[in-house]
Amino acid sequence: MKLQLALDLFDLEGALELLEEIGDILDIVEVGTPFVIMEGLKSVREIKKGFPGTTVLADLKIMDAGDYEAALAFESGADIVTVLGVSDDATIAGAVHSARKYCRRVMADMIGVNNIKERVIEVDKLGVDFICVHTGTDSQLEGKNPLRELQAVKKLVSNAEIAVAGGITLETAPLIIKEDPDIIVVGGGITKKADKRKAALEIKEMINSRSGKIYEY
Amino acid sequence: MKLQLALDLFDLEGALELLEEIGDILDIVEVGTPFVIMEGLKSVREIKKGFPGTTVLADLKIMDAGDYEAALAFESGADIVTVLGVSDDATIAGAVHSARKYCRRVMADMIGVNNIKERVIEVDKLGVDFICVHTGTDSQLEGKNPLRELQAVKKLVSNAEIAVAGGITLETAPLIIKEDPDIIVVGGGITKKADKRKAALEIKEMINSRSGKIYEY
Repeated sequence: MKLQLALDLFDLEGALELLEEIGDILDIVEVGTPFVIMEGLKSVREIKKGFPGTTVLADLKIMDAGDYEAALAFESGADIVTVLGVSDDATIAGAVHSARKYCRRVMADMIGVNNIKERVIEVDKLGVDFICVHTGTDSQLEGKNPLRELQAVKKLVSNAEIAVAGGITLETAPLIIKEDPDIIVVGGGITKKADKRKAALEIKEMINSRSGKIYEY
Repeated sequence: MKLQLALDLFDLEGALELLEEIGDILDIVEVGTPFVIMEGLKSVREIKKGFPGTTVLADLKIMDAGDYEAALAFESGADIVTVLGVSDDATIAGAVHSARKYCRRVMADMIGVNNIKERVIEVDKLGVDFICVHTGTDSQLEGKNPLRELQAVKKLVSNAEIAVAGGITLETAPLIIKEDPDIIVVGGGITKKADKRKAALEIKEMINSRSGKIYEY
């Protein structure tokens, strides 16, 4: 199980400082949608420049022109790009096509998908590398969380790896980790803590004890 | 009826030159999604700086954090921001809330909405200023176009103005204009022409003869 940090800030210098502090604990660094909106793909380029060994996910939430927009991300150094599960099959297939060309990967973000049990099977067949069960910020405010969808979806997917995102904190992580997703995405649960390194380490340790692995930091 | 140009390039200098050439013919300048992805909201700021009187639409296609992401666009000078019709009601309501706060406007982009006749009524009630019937680039390649959806949707909307987008060219514009949308969005139909000013003028003249208005350029 991998730990993905969603960079929900959009201050490039701050992001680089944060990665200096906790980058060694992370498996994937996500350049969040607001970060891309504010700074463009320069955000991805600068992070790859500062931390060339880091796996960077560009959270573009592609909704159209899948091949083209994914290529923009990959050309900027992104290792993974997100496409929306609610988009047209052709858009998802386009993003996958681009990923194969660049030897990179695609994550389908299932945010806003109503018929998730059916759609997840279709999206899986389109060849995405990851499927992310994701309760958006606005839905979280309505009391929703991704646990139930994760449980429902996991057994339906045969090819893609499963990621889970949506307001995961130190308190809610154990229940999520118990479901054994391939990637757990944490944003504010780390970035909003005073001691970010401690928070990241605690989640990493929960993951490792579930996986039976022991890491020393 | 207004003419919106979708800037599908992402070269800021080129965009400013194009606006110098044809900006006087346009009612709304759209900073397209790939442009935002590449350059961030700097694209909007620079266009507003160069052409302060221009109405600029930032095509963010917001899918989550409606209030927050719309505010990023408005703070950067955008007059209109797009939110996806497939997003959660709370996301659309958030974008509308932000627009009311900044005295700006929101366009709901109906790309990828399957149940468009039902969803358009819900989205209209959420208080968006514009509803855009939009056949995406990837769907256009499957032979789809926005004409039929425009016809179906127009009589269902009581508050928002109607925009229409999706591969509209000099050849297809007359059929669209006949349906009398409030905004017609053209991208490559102008930007891919050798004589862009001539193409923009031709579409503007089609609009004006429909509206019974006569403009001189």
